[in-house]
Amino acid sequence: MTNQNEHEQDHPHQVPAAFKIQLPTPSTPIHSATVSAPTNIACIKYWGKASSHYNTPINDSLSLTLDQADLRAVTTASCCKCFTEDKLWLNGKEVQMNASTLKRFRACVDGIRALASDKVDDITHQIVVTRSEWETMPVHIASYNNFPTAAGLASSAAGYAALVASLVALYDAREEYPGQFSAIARQGSGSACRSLYGGFVAWRAGGEREDWSDSIAEPVVDEMHWEEIRAVILVVSNKEKETSSTKGMETSVTTSRLLEYRAKHVVPQRMKEIEKAIQEKDFESFGKVTMMDSNQFHATCLDTYPPIFYMNDVSKSVVTMVHVYNEWAEEIRAAYTFDAGPNAVLYTLEKYQVELLALVLRYYPEVGEGYVNNSELRKEAMEFALEAGLVEAVEKRCRVRDIGDVKMVYCTKGGPGPQTLGDQCSLFEFV
Amino acid sequence: MTNQNEHEQDHPHQVPAAFKIQLPTPSTPIHSATVSAPTNIACIKYWGKASSHYNTPINDSLSLTLDQADLRAVTTASCCKCFTEDKLWLNGKEVQMNASTLKRFRACVDGIRALASDKVDDITHQIVVTRSEWETMPVHIASYNNFPTAAGLASSAAGYAALVASLVALYDAREEYPGQFSAIARQGSGSACRSLYGGFVAWRAGGEREDWSDSIAEPVVDEMHWEEIRAVILVVSNKEKETSSTKGMETSVTTSRLLEYRAKHVVPQRMKEIEKAIQEKDFESFGKVTMMDSNQFHATCLDTYPPIFYMNDVSKSVVTMVHVYNEWAEEIRAAYTFDAGPNAVLYTLEKYQVELLALVLRYYPEVGEGYVNNSELRKEAMEFALEAGLVEAVEKRCRVRDIGDVKMVYCTKGGPGPQTLGDQCSLFEFV
Repeated sequence: MTNQNEHEQDHPHQVPAAFKIQLPTPSTPIHSATVSAPTNIACIKYWGKASSHYNTPINDSLSLTLDQADLRAVTTASCCKCFTEDKLWLNGKEVQMNASTLKRFRACVDGIRALASDKVDDITHQIVVTRSEWETMPVHIASYNNFPTAAGLASSAAGYAALVASLVALYDAREEYPGQFSAIARQGSGSACRSLYGGFVAWRAGGEREDWSDSIAEPVVDEMHWEEIRAVILVVSNKEKETSSTKGMETSVTTSRLLEYRAKHVVPQRMKEIEKAIQEKDFESFGKVTMMDSNQFHATCLDTYPPIFYMNDVSKSVVTMVHVYNEWAEEIRAAYTFDAGPNAVLYTLEKYQVELLALVLRYYPEVGEGYVNNSELRKEAMEFALEAGLVEAVEKRCRVRDIGDVKMVYCTKGGPGPQTLGDQCSLFEFV
Repeated sequence: MTNQNEHEQDHPHQVPAAFKIQLPTPSTPIHSATVSAPTNIACIKYWGKASSHYNTPINDSLSLTLDQADLRAVTTASCCKCFTEDKLWLNGKEVQMNASTLKRFRACVDGIRALASDKVDDITHQIVVTRSEWETMPVHIASYNNFPTAAGLASSAAGYAALVASLVALYDAREEYPGQFSAIARQGSGSACRSLYGGFVAWRAGGEREDWSDSIAEPVVDEMHWEEIRAVILVVSNKEKETSSTKGMETSVTTSRLLEYRAKHVVPQRMKEIEKAIQEKDFESFGKVTMMDSNQFHATCLDTYPPIFYMNDVSKSVVTMVHVYNEWAEEIRAAYTFDAGPNAVLYTLEKYQVELLALVLRYYPEVGEGYVNNSELRKEAMEFALEAGLVEAVEKRCRVRDIGDVKMVYCTKGGPGPQTLGDQCSLFEFV
């Protein structure tokens, strides 16, 4: 976690207003930290838990951490002796935690607090809070996503990464071994562990150690290594009720014969392939493995009993469009991937981003203003002249979809891990 | 193949009119045979060829042969020394055969003709055509489906079964070993081999013999064994272009890691399970294996690169409805299966057929007259009072679909193999 405020200055987060918290004894010192954390989109998918208690996966996975300029969770963690209990607010609403949420929350708070340092006053160099004193102060946590939670853009990954990062900053916590924070974040939400690092990040399944402390995230390359990577995200409208991923995975592990085979025999090979492709900036291999792995993940969902469907007809039309585009180009210029929902994430390279966006805008008509998060790119794409051969090839297989089939398009890229923000970004206002 | 006309008398086939064929020398004897053949719907799916030359599968499969009262192909095979060449008419139109169709057609004609008997005059007991003389007479074949080819109801299975059965009748052909006719039909269209028998039929993959002569259909139980089985077929509207199954299988075999595993390790176990369930008339096990196998087949299509999608959002809504229905009933009352297209085939038992049809009619509104092929069953279903608890359960998860999402509903059941029809049913009129 870097300590610079650069990111925040470029894109000051807009929260409606800080929550005013009335303190019973206003003079009691309050300790606070505010961070921003990214979401991430997996290329090699995580599906299936090896241990539901430790929240560990049956296979390795790998993702790209996305730029917080576009998608982020901002979290403030505060603690004070005057607080009576731990509390959590999400997007402005206090959360009444059920057993499952409470377990996740406690794993993060207790896990990071156990690694706390003494707090030393900057000026006097005196210890103002001893390591063990932190436990006597309840925490108040407020978190805010700058994108709709319901859009299904891995908001829990960003949210739990921000929770862990805010606690690390609050307690000035130190890892006893590399990846320990990610092992704690993983207990909040599996894929959150990958959001603690920037660039391409692997989650090693682990399992050699009995306490699963080896189930950790590990940076593969930072966000500067393959700077040309871009992501175009299509938020797809969904009329049907989705299966929660926790419940879905549970059913898949117990009923899908194909999932077991995938985890043991297919993923290990794909991890090697994709890490090599990333190191070599080989988009052809990267894109192919990414698409195949997304398809295989959804295949194992379908092989689940009862089957789970996350992709809908609109998602499938995006798949067709991407394959036609690549066939026309005689190279892979775009690679789709779908998480546990109908949204399409299209990876591409900077040089093809406008062409791809132009294609997207042609076949998934705009709903209205703000349809594309980046107005400059939108303008370029609207003015871009798609080659006649490409339009012809796509028209043979795809039709222009209805307005609203895609609700919004985010254009983004890779980015760094969590960022510490200044006190002026606090989501609390204590009075 | 039975020789009784019973079936034909119950349900005289309606063809627009026999084709008038002008003979160059009207007095030359013409030999003809007309048969009707059924379609079949697989419970354990065939997907992937072991040999494209022999048209053999990578795994065993199993299907129910459907009643020809509802769905059938009728074929007349005629031969005469006065014909100048082999010709084929499908649904009234002469077919200009491409290389692939020609190969299939020739495999059937030459294969059955090689097993021909001498033709003996009924009255004089004289040989009128010797075994080898058949080769000197070109054949004219006319075939007619009583259901739309485009509906995707395994019309090629019924068609090639009818072709083979008509040739068997024409040449009075005799098998050298049980299943030999099915091995020939299989070269026309893989699943056609299963349509040569009634009831539940297995297709043994074979491969022990080098010429694949052991890749044959085998009756498991005839149509009387489990008379209570019913099928409700929802013909689902499809806006997208489908991948042909031959091309799809080819891509799946070369790209899907999951398909290989399925064929080797999952299907053999499922074949045992389903054959046992059928023997014991255990609908609970039969239904579960059927649904799981349909899902797994579509999962391997999705694991193909580029992926193949046959089920659409309407298909998936049927899956959801069936699971809600079974959960409500606390037993499996209906089991879906989907072939290489969006149509749903729902297996059920006679006692639940009206309830299931009532459910279908409630959530997939009628397009107009003739929406259900069986007007009596339709009437019963329209008058059937669905239990309030069931309606409530379904409404929580499913919505009433648009008119036209389902184009037609066939209610049918198991039935016998091909039937020889009388000369009055000939599709040719020679003048």
